[in-house]
Amino acid sequence: MSEPAYDDQNIFAKILRGELPCHKVFEDDGTLVFMDIMPRGPGHCLVIPKNPARNILDIAPEDYARVGKTVQRMARACKKAFAADGVTIQQFNESAGGQVVFHLHVHVIPRFEGVALLPPASKQGDADELKANAAKIAAAVD
Amino acid sequence: MSEPAYDDQNIFAKILRGELPCHKVFEDDGTLVFMDIMPRGPGHCLVIPKNPARNILDIAPEDYARVGKTVQRMARACKKAFAADGVTIQQFNESAGGQVVFHLHVHVIPRFEGVALLPPASKQGDADELKANAAKIAAAVD
Repeated sequence: MSEPAYDDQNIFAKILRGELPCHKVFEDDGTLVFMDIMPRGPGHCLVIPKNPARNILDIAPEDYARVGKTVQRMARACKKAFAADGVTIQQFNESAGGQVVFHLHVHVIPRFEGVALLPPASKQGDADELKANAAKIAAAVD
Repeated sequence: MSEPAYDDQNIFAKILRGELPCHKVFEDDGTLVFMDIMPRGPGHCLVIPKNPARNILDIAPEDYARVGKTVQRMARACKKAFAADGVTIQQFNESAGGQVVFHLHVHVIPRFEGVALLPPASKQGDADELKANAAKIAAAVD
């Protein structure tokens, strides 16, 4: 059973090529981190591999490992930046699995006692707030 | 800000020590995979590190990398075993982040078009079905 091919016109591919803007948090050789434009809570950011990969089903294990390393750093940074009580990590594969943009991405979402996540894609984030939150997380990365 | 200490009386620590049973899917030097006893869908399994770790905030990066490697293998195996349309990956940290058992675990959940996840911990899985699903996934691991 072959997997669907990678489509390089997806919006994260465009962000990687600089054709679309993002609120950047962090980058290293293998990964880029930016704010989710429709955050499910304050500080909700996305970790993506720089190499093309549709999702967990086709990504090269070494690229997935680099994503994992950055996810852990972002989880710790988010907790510190927002004095969060917890962190939720989600990664969706194919439409049935909850995926909307077909370039692998891991959601890192700071969590607070008694505060539920907003539903997915329910509300566009305020640009100034997204920018400020990106800077907060960036400053907390070890 | 120090994180809470690891409690070796959590149920996954007991599973690792053989003090509690599980429906085992897979293991290697660094990780163990078994069925979630309250599955949110058929084939819902959990990947845990063998070394003690409360969650993503305290796990050693090299142990987290081993977990990630196994998660990818299980995602692929689950998709194949159940001819799933997608896979959802979740990992919860601290109570506010959705964590209930305080040994790091990653949920790997096969998904099917039009089928929502059951709510967390809503229904105990049938033991025979869990056993059969564990065998199905195990047989599909590359």
